Amino acid sequence: MTEEKPWSGRFTAPTDAFVEAFTASIAFDKRLYAQDIRGSIAHARMLAQAGVLTPTEAEQIVAGLQQVRAEIEAGEMAFSAALEDIHMHVETRLTQLIGEVGKKLHTGRSRNDQVATDVRLYTREAIDEILAGIARLETALMDAAEREADTIMPGFTHLQVAQPVTFGHHLMAYVEMLHRDGMRLLDARKRVNVLPLGAAALAGTTFPIDRWYVAHELGFDFVAENSLDAVSDRDFAIETVAAIALMMVHLSRFAEELILWSSPSFGFIELSDSFCTGSSIMPQKKNPDVPELVRGKSARVIGALQTLLVLMKAQPLAYNKDNQEDKEPLFDALDTARGSLKVFAEMLPGMTVRREAMRAAALRGFATATDLADYLVRKGLPFRAAHEVVGKAVRLAVEQGCNLEDLSLEALRGFSPLIDADVYQVLTLEGSVEARGHIGGTAPAQVRQAIARARTRLADWGV
Amino acid sequence: MTEEKPWSGRFTAPTDAFVEAFTASIAFDKRLYAQDIRGSIAHARMLAQAGVLTPTEAEQIVAGLQQVRAEIEAGEMAFSAALEDIHMHVETRLTQLIGEVGKKLHTGRSRNDQVATDVRLYTREAIDEILAGIARLETALMDAAEREADTIMPGFTHLQVAQPVTFGHHLMAYVEMLHRDGMRLLDARKRVNVLPLGAAALAGTTFPIDRWYVAHELGFDFVAENSLDAVSDRDFAIETVAAIALMMVHLSRFAEELILWSSPSFGFIELSDSFCTGSSIMPQKKNPDVPELVRGKSARVIGALQTLLVLMKAQPLAYNKDNQEDKEPLFDALDTARGSLKVFAEMLPGMTVRREAMRAAALRGFATATDLADYLVRKGLPFRAAHEVVGKAVRLAVEQGCNLEDLSLEALRGFSPLIDADVYQVLTLEGSVEARGHIGGTAPAQVRQAIARARTRLADWGV
Amino acid sequence: MTEEKPWSGRFTAPTDAFVEAFTASIAFDKRLYAQDIRGSIAHARMLAQAGVLTPTEAEQIVAGLQQVRAEIEAGEMAFSAALEDIHMHVETRLTQLIGEVGKKLHTGRSRNDQVATDVRLYTREAIDEILAGIARLETALMDAAEREADTIMPGFTHLQVAQPVTFGHHLMAYVEMLHRDGMRLLDARKRVNVLPLGAAALAGTTFPIDRWYVAHELGFDFVAENSLDAVSDRDFAIETVAAIALMMVHLSRFAEELILWSSPSFGFIELSDSFCTGSSIMPQKKNPDVPELVRGKSARVIGALQTLLVLMKAQPLAYNKDNQEDKEPLFDALDTARGSLKVFAEMLPGMTVRREAMRAAALRGFATATDLADYLVRKGLPFRAAHEVVGKAVRLAVEQGCNLEDLSLEALRGFSPLIDADVYQVLTLEGSVEARGHIGGTAPAQVRQAIARARTRLADWGV
Amino acid sequence: MTEEKPWSGRFTAPTDAFVEAFTASIAFDKRLYAQDIRGSIAHARMLAQAGVLTPTEAEQIVAGLQQVRAEIEAGEMAFSAALEDIHMHVETRLTQLIGEVGKKLHTGRSRNDQVATDVRLYTREAIDEILAGIARLETALMDAAEREADTIMPGFTHLQVAQPVTFGHHLMAYVEMLHRDGMRLLDARKRVNVLPLGAAALAGTTFPIDRWYVAHELGFDFVAENSLDAVSDRDFAIETVAAIALMMVHLSRFAEELILWSSPSFGFIELSDSFCTGSSIMPQKKNPDVPELVRGKSARVIGALQTLLVLMKAQPLAYNKDNQEDKEPLFDALDTARGSLKVFAEMLPGMTVRREAMRAAALRGFATATDLADYLVRKGLPFRAAHEVVGKAVRLAVEQGCNLEDLSLEALRGFSPLIDADVYQVLTLEGSVEARGHIGGTAPAQVRQAIARARTRLADWGV
Repeated sequence: MTEEKPWSGRFTAPTDAFVEAFTASIAFDKRLYAQDIRGSIAHARMLAQAGVLTPTEAEQIVAGLQQVRAEIEAGEMAFSAALEDIHMHVETRLTQLIGEVGKKLHTGRSRNDQVATDVRLYTREAIDEILAGIARLETALMDAAEREADTIMPGFTHLQVAQPVTFGHHLMAYVEMLHRDGMRLLDARKRVNVLPLGAAALAGTTFPIDRWYVAHELGFDFVAENSLDAVSDRDFAIETVAAIALMMVHLSRFAEELILWSSPSFGFIELSDSFCTGSSIMPQKKNPDVPELVRGKSARVIGALQTLLVLMKAQPLAYNKDNQEDKEPLFDALDTARGSLKVFAEMLPGMTVRREAMRAAALRGFATATDLADYLVRKGLPFRAAHEVVGKAVRLAVEQGCNLEDLSLEALRGFSPLIDADVYQVLTLEGSVEARGHIGGTAPAQVRQAIARARTRLADWGV
Repeated sequence: MTEEKPWSGRFTAPTDAFVEAFTASIAFDKRLYAQDIRGSIAHARMLAQAGVLTPTEAEQIVAGLQQVRAEIEAGEMAFSAALEDIHMHVETRLTQLIGEVGKKLHTGRSRNDQVATDVRLYTREAIDEILAGIARLETALMDAAEREADTIMPGFTHLQVAQPVTFGHHLMAYVEMLHRDGMRLLDARKRVNVLPLGAAALAGTTFPIDRWYVAHELGFDFVAENSLDAVSDRDFAIETVAAIALMMVHLSRFAEELILWSSPSFGFIELSDSFCTGSSIMPQKKNPDVPELVRGKSARVIGALQTLLVLMKAQPLAYNKDNQEDKEPLFDALDTARGSLKVFAEMLPGMTVRREAMRAAALRGFATATDLADYLVRKGLPFRAAHEVVGKAVRLAVEQGCNLEDLSLEALRGFSPLIDADVYQVLTLEGSVEARGHIGGTAPAQVRQAIARARTRLADWGV
Repeated sequence: MTEEKPWSGRFTAPTDAFVEAFTASIAFDKRLYAQDIRGSIAHARMLAQAGVLTPTEAEQIVAGLQQVRAEIEAGEMAFSAALEDIHMHVETRLTQLIGEVGKKLHTGRSRNDQVATDVRLYTREAIDEILAGIARLETALMDAAEREADTIMPGFTHLQVAQPVTFGHHLMAYVEMLHRDGMRLLDARKRVNVLPLGAAALAGTTFPIDRWYVAHELGFDFVAENSLDAVSDRDFAIETVAAIALMMVHLSRFAEELILWSSPSFGFIELSDSFCTGSSIMPQKKNPDVPELVRGKSARVIGALQTLLVLMKAQPLAYNKDNQEDKEPLFDALDTARGSLKVFAEMLPGMTVRREAMRAAALRGFATATDLADYLVRKGLPFRAAHEVVGKAVRLAVEQGCNLEDLSLEALRGFSPLIDADVYQVLTLEGSVEARGHIGGTAPAQVRQAIARARTRLADWGV
Repeated sequence: MTEEKPWSGRFTAPTDAFVEAFTASIAFDKRLYAQDIRGSIAHARMLAQAGVLTPTEAEQIVAGLQQVRAEIEAGEMAFSAALEDIHMHVETRLTQLIGEVGKKLHTGRSRNDQVATDVRLYTREAIDEILAGIARLETALMDAAEREADTIMPGFTHLQVAQPVTFGHHLMAYVEMLHRDGMRLLDARKRVNVLPLGAAALAGTTFPIDRWYVAHELGFDFVAENSLDAVSDRDFAIETVAAIALMMVHLSRFAEELILWSSPSFGFIELSDSFCTGSSIMPQKKNPDVPELVRGKSARVIGALQTLLVLMKAQPLAYNKDNQEDKEPLFDALDTARGSLKVFAEMLPGMTVRREAMRAAALRGFATATDLADYLVRKGLPFRAAHEVVGKAVRLAVEQGCNLEDLSLEALRGFSPLIDADVYQVLTLEGSVEARGHIGGTAPAQVRQAIARARTRLADWGV
């Protein structure tokens, strides 16, 4: 037999036991307990301010709520599907503790605006933690980029050797991606940090509430302008998860590269033993599990985003029970973001860089062919014509199984008489990277400047 | 400090504690314990059969595994991230119980083929439960359809009144959808029920294993033809979740209609109190939470399918750690399917049908206008011309705020002299539904035949 | 036989004809012609400024490009898969027109940074058009909300009658959603409006380019900080499509409501004939095709977002051919947004509101039960106790088939002696909506203030 | 000014011009012309059979339809949004050609069942083409697998060298995946090949139609059992696209490997020039565009599947205009499948295999460590103990920078006295692959048997 529901007045039959379990949210919304209690305290104080509660009543309620919080944190709360959700658990326990006055807390609000407030508070805090995680990973990347500002590796397009780049420059590409992710989350945070409380069920309330008082108590920047929107909107969750999904795509790209670079065919890096695991059958294996798992987890957040969008599609106003399904994908995305950032930030400092393997790979694949074309342009050939000349030289080198710089001057001049002995300098890896010395280019000096700018930008961020 | 890993021989540093928690799967794969132990027992017996283990060793192992299972079912197993997954938990406990011989169990296999076997066994059983759930819901629908075979309601297209249909016919549309879902799952089951064990890590094993022996022990129809495919393939999970996603789309459509019909503007049905919940603020509310939640849960499974597809996209062969992320979306989809089918099957018998409200709604909206057009065709007018004539009659009725049958014969003949007094019969709801007496049509007699065929089909299914 | 490719120097065999068609992008990237030419003109001027081209060469190139644009706009360009993409079409035609100097245009850039620049220009312009579309639809909604500020309708939760609201208030919920969509697109625009040109293939170029010059010519706010990121990043497309997907979810919700309200069971509104279509078979049908199609199109954009995220997942740096697949989902999402906003903005003014039907529906379903509970709270009962009292009164009314206000004072006092004759005033629809007079509430005066604030906000937007 | 609509009888205002364009489907459904005409011919013949049309009328209609088809195929049909869709184009032209009798064709059907019939016919034919494409690619893979049955390459897990496998075995993994894809499409085809015609708008028709006659004429295996389901169901499209999405995931995995293997760091294969393209800036580049594009296109089909699921979610019965959005994702998925299979099947025969590079890579990474452990097991050590012994030997070899077979017998015996001189044989690549000689294993003889079985299976398929 299930407990009596706080809304059972108009019902003639009790809730089916399986239905009770099927519709309960306590298993996953209990993590909102702190936000729920914080919101209730602010609400109670406002009701006193507005004269709806007496000061004494408000004090009793606040003290009672603090005790409920203490009990939950001490693991003393028994959670039960019969009490549906965290809101009912807190309120029911409050009333057990302080008696009838506890029944006054729900005046002028509804679970619809209450849960929206709780989830926004929770999301705001999680965003702040994710921003800190981004800053930490950016810093780890910048530290590594500084160490590797002069390390030359093959830059790839289509996973073919394209042009030499510095490893520091390559790492800084991820700093750019992550910083955009952070900016996007900061933008989302503005729209998260809006108070729905006061919308009550959907239309507002007949009590003389002061919504700005509650907003200030809870650190919200704005109050929601429309009560129907306030209780039914889940934009803040969707926008946050969309930003996280994109961040996970970035981490999946980095993960892919870490996996490639750890493969013996590349051999560019070695991850620390502490961040790898072995095989139950193959004794020699050392597997880059952490990047693989993060690559896999990007799928999870992309799926969570899809769930949230599909959930909200075509729902009529205002609140529908469907919305209860918002929490699990949101929480899962927030958890995944926090964990993935942390594990990457901790893994990076222990990454061993095999500079000689990077350099050797850069020497394969005619990485400086574009430099030769540019050389010819500077000697007066139109770029397209230069491109064709070098293409033919590459074809000869492929046939001879050698590099461009291994071709004799005579052979090279056979393709264009504009080529002189100074050509061999532009064909070096160092010459190639140094020559790309403009903003955004791969020259070591530029990379160092980019790191400096990124450090300032991060410091200004104040996360 | 973490426990020593079974693969730690070649490692010089222990696993980072956070990494251990981040990469462990025990929190969600512990539900595979029974399948894992069943698979290990079959494997041990096969090894004895093949002479790799002695009969005594095999007996010791089997007895030990049975004890491990008993301990788990008695809640005596302490799960720990340090032991990574259910496989290591079982094997470690086995070795504690029976000593060194326990270390022989993993001969000729790997976790890669072991986990694939476990998940296939689990999925096969879940499919069978879902098929039973489908059969149960089909039966509930057919029972209701039989009761409502003569009940006339407005058939809608574009949510506008289109033509009268019987409510029984409407319910049978969902039987068709669900039965296709079942057939799809049965087809998927064929591809689920293939034994990967024997693939070992990726290439097979050097021991003289007998894969068909294991297949028969575990009830698999086939053995996987290619070891690389066997350990890396997650098709069976994707296909199963795809079939469930489509089934949930069907339930979401039914849920949408139950919600609409429960809305006072329609008032076609009333769900039992036991399947509804109330509001924390609005005392009068009785909300169709169950259909709303199922509608919402369709989003969850659609998201799970997306996660699985994205997870596998562009993974090189063979096994990668990404694959560990397959379990949570798969398990969640299976759980959601089981729960949603059950709750709908239990809810349907208690649904009250408001036949008079359905009939009243069918009388609004010119539901029999097509019958009038067909009448004119039978009198010799080409259909397109008849359509135009009736369109004009409807426009007049709209202007006069009346129904078609309220127009005088004179008025009707003003649109076409082919109209006679017998027209009023074709304009009745009963006349309209009776006239659609071919296979697939809405006539009550046809609906009863369709129910009979569907009952036979379901009985033949043998689920 | 296919034309010679500009990159064919190192190749010994021509491209397979089917491969040529399979890999070509001209069918969909030709819509970038104006952006491509604008970008090339800025690039040529910069090269002259930097001394890489002579002023005369730059002038010839600019004039040639303008002629190419004129030819395309006159429909004189024959597009062909052999020339792969719009960039090659423009450059090839340029060289036909002005000879060898045309071959100098591609100095210091690559198609990788060129296409990224083109697509960003295109997206920026499309965002500006979408913002204008949002402003237009917001205005249409506010105009309607003003007309309907006093119109009372049932507010729904769970599609059950919850509390009376004003139709103006309901419409303003969509203004809130749309305005957030606009703000989100403005935030995205900041990250779209960053110049990738100068990244060349992936590493920057050896020519003394001035990227800020080009940025200013083309109206970009920033230059991309990292060349590898600049050519491989598609964040700007993903973020834009994510914002559009959420906007389409909002439109799908509004569409759902328009469809419900147009259904005869609700009968709250009637859409203009010009925005509906009929049936090929049922002469009476008038279908709300436009909202249905927009509801359907939300699925399309949600799919496009998924395509883009999946596309980028786990791609190693820098540019890969996969990225070519970014354009069709991006363009499709932009087109869908523009069309959907336009058709809704044009449809709204012709919507007929059936105020009496709304009012009649609000009188069903005990919409003012919460007001009764609040009344009891003001008389001293704790809210939870009041809720229970009213629940029982509702149960009686349900049994008697009447409304709350139809119960006698005696009957009401049977539930609580606190009820007096003044109760009947709080049970009126007008009393209920007037009482919700705080910010965000549904009282007509509040709605008018909200409209005024929203108009100011929109005016300040300057879109 | 727009043309008069065939359903305009009850309308007082014409369709808005933008609405006309926004709601028209002719741009994409014109590809259904042949199926539409075929279906109409069968319908007309059935109507004659049923006495609804005279034989002469049916003959006139059939001849007229054949002429319309000829005109379309000759490019003489002018398509226009005013005529909405292909059905109206065909019928309107028919009536122009044969006069009033053309207006009789639409008797006893609706566009709702007509379009469902057309799309099912189209999908059935496309599935058959895709099955042929799968068979062709399977054959290309088996031919290559036969050539490479003895070629040893490193088998990877986690992209780390795991155990040696044969390249033929590796290729056969894709044959398994593709064959499952084919089987899945064959299963889907059963559910595609069901006739909806006769459902009319949603409820059936009042004319004495013979649905089985039409089914036989058009090659359908069954007639749909329920008219409401028949017009609103899009399962057949979703299931087909789901099967294609999974197939594209398989191709994306193969694409990923082709790209990796083409990268100079692996250097395992070289694709033919005809299937690669170059760079506009880097003269040396030869990019594996085709696999990259196919990898990218997997995202497109995954997105299409999502669009279809989201489209159908929560739609009430029966037909809604949303469904019009089903065609573009379906057609796009079918086109992508056909093109991707074709281009891969044509690319494979020209792939050059660098056997020596594969072998060299297999010698790195301790690929035979598991063989050493198995050797120890056969000498009596429990597997877990053997695993640990070998792990330590690997650690020594890593420290010494050598392979396992480079360790002296003395050094090896330091880890276990069970090791004898015969150990060096099990450490060879050939010994390792030969030893995996069970069904599913990588031994060349097994691979040849697997190829033979797969060829028989394919022949029996009869596609």
